[in-house]
Amino acid sequence: MRIAIDVMGGDHAPEQIVKGALDAAAEWPDTELLLVGDKAAIEPFLKDGIPSNVQLVQADDVIGPEDEPVKAVRRKKGASMVVAGQLVKDKQADAMLSAGNTGALMTTGLLVVGRMEGIERPALAFVLPTMDDVGILAMDLGANMDAKPEHLAQYAVMGSIYREKVHGIKQPRVGLLNVGTEAKKGNEMTKAAYDLLEQAPIHFIGNVESRDVLNRNCDVIISDGFAGNIMLKSLEGTAGTIFTMLKSAFGSSFLTKIAAAIMLPQLKKLKKKMDYKEHGGAPLLGLNGLVVKCHGSSDAVAVKNAVRQARIALQGNMIESISSEINGK
Amino acid sequence: MRIAIDVMGGDHAPEQIVKGALDAAAEWPDTELLLVGDKAAIEPFLKDGIPSNVQLVQADDVIGPEDEPVKAVRRKKGASMVVAGQLVKDKQADAMLSAGNTGALMTTGLLVVGRMEGIERPALAFVLPTMDDVGILAMDLGANMDAKPEHLAQYAVMGSIYREKVHGIKQPRVGLLNVGTEAKKGNEMTKAAYDLLEQAPIHFIGNVESRDVLNRNCDVIISDGFAGNIMLKSLEGTAGTIFTMLKSAFGSSFLTKIAAAIMLPQLKKLKKKMDYKEHGGAPLLGLNGLVVKCHGSSDAVAVKNAVRQARIALQGNMIESISSEINGK
Repeated sequence: MRIAIDVMGGDHAPEQIVKGALDAAAEWPDTELLLVGDKAAIEPFLKDGIPSNVQLVQADDVIGPEDEPVKAVRRKKGASMVVAGQLVKDKQADAMLSAGNTGALMTTGLLVVGRMEGIERPALAFVLPTMDDVGILAMDLGANMDAKPEHLAQYAVMGSIYREKVHGIKQPRVGLLNVGTEAKKGNEMTKAAYDLLEQAPIHFIGNVESRDVLNRNCDVIISDGFAGNIMLKSLEGTAGTIFTMLKSAFGSSFLTKIAAAIMLPQLKKLKKKMDYKEHGGAPLLGLNGLVVKCHGSSDAVAVKNAVRQARIALQGNMIESISSEINGK
Repeated sequence: MRIAIDVMGGDHAPEQIVKGALDAAAEWPDTELLLVGDKAAIEPFLKDGIPSNVQLVQADDVIGPEDEPVKAVRRKKGASMVVAGQLVKDKQADAMLSAGNTGALMTTGLLVVGRMEGIERPALAFVLPTMDDVGILAMDLGANMDAKPEHLAQYAVMGSIYREKVHGIKQPRVGLLNVGTEAKKGNEMTKAAYDLLEQAPIHFIGNVESRDVLNRNCDVIISDGFAGNIMLKSLEGTAGTIFTMLKSAFGSSFLTKIAAAIMLPQLKKLKKKMDYKEHGGAPLLGLNGLVVKCHGSSDAVAVKNAVRQARIALQGNMIESISSEINGK
């Protein structure tokens, strides 16, 4: 299997991305890794030589975090991200990874790799942290603001298959983000989506509330990108604010500083649980190939983890499973 | 001025509601309070006599928390909540308060008190807690699931006037709940609402994110009921989960219990900041009269606070101000 890695995208590119790719190459000799980027920029990090299962693919250009996604993908045909996408499109690679501009990666997925037949809206599937450290796969947290009920039903099928194939959760419980758990709750969109989800080939457990997400009230949570993003930022913001207040409370006197010293290991653990960046790559589901978004701040460990995920997805024929479920063949 | 109080609604009715009303009557002798309920149930709490500015209004029936709102309001004409609404409708009272069934109170507002001319959707205005204890007035947190951009613009005008008249905040900053702060962010609905809010007679500061709500990023936050409710429950749920985790971390050993003892006063203060029940009554804005929803668990202090709010709103001619702003007269 062959995985193309955009080594030019992300805050720590190319050094950490190259390092992660080399670590992955060493761990999985059966996997070919195509490092896509500017050779001159990459070579300083290849001083120990290039392993036999690693190839360099030259890309002269790069898409930056400030680039306007659609314009950048259309105009910069030689950008590392676009070249990696083209490798997947041309079946030269089975999957691609990038820690670059999220919007540009989604555009690369749509315009270069191509949408899967029968899928109306590809979407990113992120893992929300939960207190038990298992996490919830969330679709969609902001890729598509206005979704139709049919899109939500497709997210559910794709997310459910990914959760089972890649995360090994049998019969993942799929919940619909809503304002109450009763069947008739919500707005017109969620009411219509509820009916479709009941008929979908998934283990639908009904409506779920954002207040219970941290306690893993389901394995896959479905919403439109607007509601999902409001939930995500509320969770992040509340956790961040409480930790800031705690820090100030712990620092307020000699005694509280002693208390802080006692509690530090546990507080760190708790804070880490809430860190949305700790989790690995997010697949863009609904394409004719596997595209994985790595966090912008990804280091070598994160990149290697993303390769691990991609391998599992490819070994489990995840894309084919989604296609046959969506298209009934 | 005359304020009707549904003394039969709420978890601690009628005792705490009557007690709060009597405290309010003693504090504000210029205000007449109409206690609406079953005299037999009320009288045990009036052993010290009835003050001259308090009247009892008989209501034989009561709407319970499990009653289906529209059905209950239509059928139970003699319910305390409906009788209180009728007093406002008939100009026998300037305002009404109830700690009863929220849906039934909204229905009473719409069907009994009546919608204000020019207003399409009345909505409840709740105060979200913020770390500086000032709070943000939020419309809507769940009353109307599917709102149109025009509804959001009306919420903004009503909420802004309430915030200024009742909470004394000059030129309250109105923010639109969205997935980013840039002008072009969001779904079709928020994009259209943004344009209307820019033209509204308010101090519109643009889009605001849910992650900054606890730091009071605005004074009035506008959203449809679905998104507002997702935000509210995410905030509540995250805070609740973190406090539960903290409690367990603090209880894990002898040393951490010492740390807990040191931190207890400050943790209590922090937890109280996040308690959404601590705040007073929520007005149902957009009606031909003032209707205030008190929290179901309201005690005498909360009831007295709600009377205080209602007095300020009436003294400031809040309803007339909203009407003249909406109808341009």
